[in-house]
Amino acid sequence: MTREDYERRMTRAGHAAADAGLAGVIVTPGPDLAWLCGYEQTTGERLTALVIAPGARPRMLVPALERGDIERAPGAGAVDLTGWTDGADPYAAMAELLAGDGRYGISDSAWAMHVLGFQRTLPGTSYAALTEALPMLRAVKDAHEVERLAAAGAAADAVYEEILKVPFSGRREREVAADLDRLLREHGHSQVDFTIVGSGPNGANPHHEAGDRVIEEGDMVVLDFGGLKDGYGSDTSRTVHVGEPTPEERKVHDIVREAQQAAFEAVRPGVACQEIDRVARKVINSAGYGEYFIHRTGHGIGVTTHEPPYMVEGEHLPLVPGMCFSIEPGIYLPGRFGVRIEDIVTCTETGGRRLNNTAHGMGIVS
Amino acid sequence: MTREDYERRMTRAGHAAADAGLAGVIVTPGPDLAWLCGYEQTTGERLTALVIAPGARPRMLVPALERGDIERAPGAGAVDLTGWTDGADPYAAMAELLAGDGRYGISDSAWAMHVLGFQRTLPGTSYAALTEALPMLRAVKDAHEVERLAAAGAAADAVYEEILKVPFSGRREREVAADLDRLLREHGHSQVDFTIVGSGPNGANPHHEAGDRVIEEGDMVVLDFGGLKDGYGSDTSRTVHVGEPTPEERKVHDIVREAQQAAFEAVRPGVACQEIDRVARKVINSAGYGEYFIHRTGHGIGVTTHEPPYMVEGEHLPLVPGMCFSIEPGIYLPGRFGVRIEDIVTCTETGGRRLNNTAHGMGIVS
Repeated sequence: MTREDYERRMTRAGHAAADAGLAGVIVTPGPDLAWLCGYEQTTGERLTALVIAPGARPRMLVPALERGDIERAPGAGAVDLTGWTDGADPYAAMAELLAGDGRYGISDSAWAMHVLGFQRTLPGTSYAALTEALPMLRAVKDAHEVERLAAAGAAADAVYEEILKVPFSGRREREVAADLDRLLREHGHSQVDFTIVGSGPNGANPHHEAGDRVIEEGDMVVLDFGGLKDGYGSDTSRTVHVGEPTPEERKVHDIVREAQQAAFEAVRPGVACQEIDRVARKVINSAGYGEYFIHRTGHGIGVTTHEPPYMVEGEHLPLVPGMCFSIEPGIYLPGRFGVRIEDIVTCTETGGRRLNNTAHGMGIVS
Repeated sequence: MTREDYERRMTRAGHAAADAGLAGVIVTPGPDLAWLCGYEQTTGERLTALVIAPGARPRMLVPALERGDIERAPGAGAVDLTGWTDGADPYAAMAELLAGDGRYGISDSAWAMHVLGFQRTLPGTSYAALTEALPMLRAVKDAHEVERLAAAGAAADAVYEEILKVPFSGRREREVAADLDRLLREHGHSQVDFTIVGSGPNGANPHHEAGDRVIEEGDMVVLDFGGLKDGYGSDTSRTVHVGEPTPEERKVHDIVREAQQAAFEAVRPGVACQEIDRVARKVINSAGYGEYFIHRTGHGIGVTTHEPPYMVEGEHLPLVPGMCFSIEPGIYLPGRFGVRIEDIVTCTETGGRRLNNTAHGMGIVS
């Protein structure tokens, strides 16, 4: 990614803001800022804010202390920097950078303290969360981004093939999770975001990560892992079994597999995100397990492993070629076991394309 | 920390809200939530919000998926939980939990998306950042908390004593930083937040962490490290020298040392935070180095290593017994070297008490 690449993204953001009737967008540290100008910085109480207004050169208010770091970001050369020092009022300083009164989109994860500071100091301005105001800005990936996501997905697939060969029975969940972490890094991940190993009853809690439970013969085990490779995310789930599954375990796994497939086949431009959720849910409802599918069907992925758009009831946003998201239905039987199957999928002109391609059949481990 | 301990903190927050004329406080995941009910969860797009209103039992809106995790938090038994599922509107659900219209304090780091969602959905409510509305709530530590901070400080002091014995010359900054990380963990830290090793010209950038520069004979080296031990923070800086310093290096180090001492001696109840900054700055200004002291003098510390109150011009908040904060003046000579000396200090009835107690003289390393 060159300065020109980032400059194009910022220009595109300016056009999108104009099209949406916004005076501009305000971007604080986090994935939006990394995506727009390559500056990776954790957010904090000292205000850092990139301002993109239609037709104007991007400007950024930065703590004077951090100016040197920002200048090294690949897109910084396309941005005019204004420093502020400890003790000054950064909200008043923002007035100089904004394109006047009006409505601004602001990063979803900007601190409440900062948006309240803007509202108090600049009464002629109003604010909307960036993903609500400009939902397509980061959600629609260009070909370069889709290829990075595909490469991250291929790496995660290689990790899955290798984890099938490690011993499960007699080891703690967190030991298998450590294997997943190591394998993700061996396959080029610079950051590991989650390594879920949910064995037996722990698999019935979709939020369980990995604990001290010793995996036993006869366990179903939900595996869900991912992170960042070359700045783009991976995220895949498969459910494996230690030894031979029971007929009921096979049945539940088959239902989830069918739901995942049906949702995948529903992907095409113009379909609303909520429709992907509905299609998956319908399969599970029809099989009588609807009350055990307790989360949305998917989430977007890009420079983070977890971002809009969400495949959830109420999300009317239409799929657009270039959107990349998870399809991950599951069934969770409390106290017994869980099943989840997840692929990252991108919407193309002609339908869905999977960025994870390992077998959907229940992996048998030992 | 028992359920009753957390219950007392929540009750105290309710009283503080009433005293400040607030209808209540809204707390999202982060240090406020960990402090109030022992629930440690990273913040995200799914709304989790604890509501504390004067005289009412605390309530929390939680994603249904995460309910099991929250129930295991030590303070959760004192909180009524309300779940919301993917696809529902969490902002509308909040109306049920709030104590009606009015002004609410909200966690500084709550997502802008969430506070904008509240404003849009609940037009009779208004919001203020929690540390502005209730600056004393977490800033004033009880005796138990001060002792935890003292224990974390003592551990950091032990790390400093040990780092003086490792070789510096010929090793990369990041190797010494790795030693600091290892030593902090050996001394009971569960989390390491920063291990700054700024050698030679890198020391002149207070934001520099640790890089590939090979430390040489004759370098000044700024060391600044800390993290969490038993849930409370450490943060200390000392500046060491590889071999014998020059007269100028000694002089600059003496000025910083004098500034740190003067600011420490200014600590007593009722003094404004900005006065601590002014006292340190006056020493450095008088010595002719004012333009090279480019950051505020200090920050609060508690369940995070970095929080309000700030020792900065414009902060009129008075010191109160139990406040704990850093005093860390520095001088940064671009392209040459930097010096910083930092102790955590707590305000007592009779003045300051240092929670770091290693020698302020320039450590000589080899």
